Amino acid sequence: MVKVEIITIGDEILIGQIVDTNSAWIAQQLNLNGFHVEQITSISDTKEHILEALKLAESRVEIIITTGGLGPTADDITKPAIAEYFNSKMRIDEGVLADVTGYLKQKGREIGEQNKLQALVPEKCTVIRNHIGTAPVMWFDKNDKVFVSLPGVPFEMKELISSKILPKLKAKFSTPHIIHKTVMTNGLPESILADKIHDWEIALPKNLKLAYLPSPEAVRLRVSAYGQENNLEELVDIEIKKLHQYIGKYIFAYDDVYLNEAIGLLLKEKAASMATAESCTGGLIAQLLTSVSGSSEYYKGSIVAYANEAKANLLDVPMSLIDKHGAVSKQVVEAMAMGVLKKLNVDYAVATSGVAGPNGGTPDKPVGTVWFAVASKDKVVSRTYTINIKREVNMRLAANSALQFLRFLILDL
Amino acid sequence: MVKVEIITIGDEILIGQIVDTNSAWIAQQLNLNGFHVEQITSISDTKEHILEALKLAESRVEIIITTGGLGPTADDITKPAIAEYFNSKMRIDEGVLADVTGYLKQKGREIGEQNKLQALVPEKCTVIRNHIGTAPVMWFDKNDKVFVSLPGVPFEMKELISSKILPKLKAKFSTPHIIHKTVMTNGLPESILADKIHDWEIALPKNLKLAYLPSPEAVRLRVSAYGQENNLEELVDIEIKKLHQYIGKYIFAYDDVYLNEAIGLLLKEKAASMATAESCTGGLIAQLLTSVSGSSEYYKGSIVAYANEAKANLLDVPMSLIDKHGAVSKQVVEAMAMGVLKKLNVDYAVATSGVAGPNGGTPDKPVGTVWFAVASKDKVVSRTYTINIKREVNMRLAANSALQFLRFLILDL
Repeated sequence: MVKVEIITIGDEILIGQIVDTNSAWIAQQLNLNGFHVEQITSISDTKEHILEALKLAESRVEIIITTGGLGPTADDITKPAIAEYFNSKMRIDEGVLADVTGYLKQKGREIGEQNKLQALVPEKCTVIRNHIGTAPVMWFDKNDKVFVSLPGVPFEMKELISSKILPKLKAKFSTPHIIHKTVMTNGLPESILADKIHDWEIALPKNLKLAYLPSPEAVRLRVSAYGQENNLEELVDIEIKKLHQYIGKYIFAYDDVYLNEAIGLLLKEKAASMATAESCTGGLIAQLLTSVSGSSEYYKGSIVAYANEAKANLLDVPMSLIDKHGAVSKQVVEAMAMGVLKKLNVDYAVATSGVAGPNGGTPDKPVGTVWFAVASKDKVVSRTYTINIKREVNMRLAANSALQFLRFLILDL
Repeated sequence: MVKVEIITIGDEILIGQIVDTNSAWIAQQLNLNGFHVEQITSISDTKEHILEALKLAESRVEIIITTGGLGPTADDITKPAIAEYFNSKMRIDEGVLADVTGYLKQKGREIGEQNKLQALVPEKCTVIRNHIGTAPVMWFDKNDKVFVSLPGVPFEMKELISSKILPKLKAKFSTPHIIHKTVMTNGLPESILADKIHDWEIALPKNLKLAYLPSPEAVRLRVSAYGQENNLEELVDIEIKKLHQYIGKYIFAYDDVYLNEAIGLLLKEKAASMATAESCTGGLIAQLLTSVSGSSEYYKGSIVAYANEAKANLLDVPMSLIDKHGAVSKQVVEAMAMGVLKKLNVDYAVATSGVAGPNGGTPDKPVGTVWFAVASKDKVVSRTYTINIKREVNMRLAANSALQFLRFLILDL
């Protein structure tokens, strides 16, 4: 068991201004790769505290990963602290200096004195270059133990861990054989899903473990197989094939491919196009679809008709229909889907109209009520549900339900 | 300075299955009340690890708060571990037994053997009753230090901290006065911001501390003041007033109010309405604005014109303009802003068109190039930048830059 400690450095966590999501993400990645996270420690931006934390971590684990405190400003003191810990002089790394200069130039900026300091690194470390930010990674080897100091900016940290740190750690340490496959489902709440697959779950081979990972986007089922055998992958595939007999319709993809991407693949396959008309999801479906690179191939656009005038003016929904049935209704949401289908001349359209909350509910249409419609050239179908958790979650659930509903239409499920 | 360590106990944090939001909340409450959180430590459900963590924490701080591991199941071993730490026998607490019985009865359940064990507490602790769950709080006094063990269920923990633990801690310890104010800026990268406010920063009174908290949405500047004086708030306000002379234009709000909310407040104040026309931001601006409850008061909708046909059909951008200048151009983005202004009959409009990446760049318009336009009834203004980090970040930066640009127009800055 290769033990790891994650140390996050920065007062903003200790005063509770930000939630430490970095550690959870790093812990997850390490865990998936067979490393054991022994402790997560959040400490302040002071040299004494950093030195003490490094010393204690070194006594407990093989790998110490720190994040944060590497910025160009005066309150970032991780680098001098770690240099002192290793009793190392500093040197200017010309490669890093070129990276920082290039990175800033690309942004149309000159390198300032503050930024030049980012190329100053401890002599005893191996520098791992960071091409999407200004702080390089410092990697130290010491008596078969490894210390890695990463910037705390989440997207830089994630990219560096995935592309550079994990491969290096896996090359250096031998970890047990674990494989994971994640089944992506949407459309069944966790408890109903658990009931439906209960028989399958209790019949799983002993070296297979199941974890439920629910979120508004999907209930992910992670199947993990442990062992020395070479056929672990095959074992998992056999079980997942069986799982399809229980909940096949709701499985839309594998391994963290979400609905926005799955829909895109489906449309590309069919050389079909789509558009959206959103009220209560307020642009979230559009944002999900366009967050996929290359989506312009099949996604033409969205009309976010938040106000009723917008539904009438932009989507040709008759104002009389809105007056008669209300904006949150089968009639209006179907008219929205058909409206955008025509306006943007696409093969498929999806529309939402609902009460996201926390205000705006009525006894008849309480907060959490959403109407969905999906349309193709020859039909339009609608459905409704009421699920109220909180505004943000309601919107995320509705956006993903809309996409799953569209998937059912495209695949005729 | 009364120092605190928060210890969260449970494997789910160490494998990255959940994000530790409890610690951030507790840290925030303690901080607001003048306690200093020295460290946050997440450890596994093992007795050895709990004992070691308690010992180290005792050597560092005056108050140790643990959460988690107090449930009725076998993997919850915080209670035996903490009893061993204090070398204490166990006793049945009749008050807790009555609480647990009553709590379960209220939920229509009988008390089982497992639940009866929750009334078993170390003799050496002061029991603090929990009326909204089954695990009581254990409070230990030891040589002027305090150990508090709380259940990890967030709503139970929060209620207990607010109503019982904080008042008891404040009665026992005398704490200094600390206040924090966060200045929200957008439009200047962290390093340029740091250069611009350098003179201000070094002239800050000794008891004021500055921290930079950057993200694609904002660079937040947190000013913290420490001391016994009653005028700390005033001190901070004076310094922030001075800060305005350096970067006033870029300060859009305080204390974690983001641009989507700040724009909303501004529009409400002016009783004005707005709409958006988005290409490269793909609905993200709409999503940001509609994520604010009550946004329907000023936000009418968005046309997410991802395809060129959509720009022409929905926004009346002449196809000849697109052919001549390209979709990512001053001319087209200005036509988009004016188009949506008219279509939705609003006071203000903002439009984006750019290359979000990773593909689609040209030597002339590389990935990260974005054109922004903002329009009111009597003018339209545009600008451009090129910043390429990665698709998702490019989009977040562009959406927030668009909102800041709109703010400049509304305020005539």
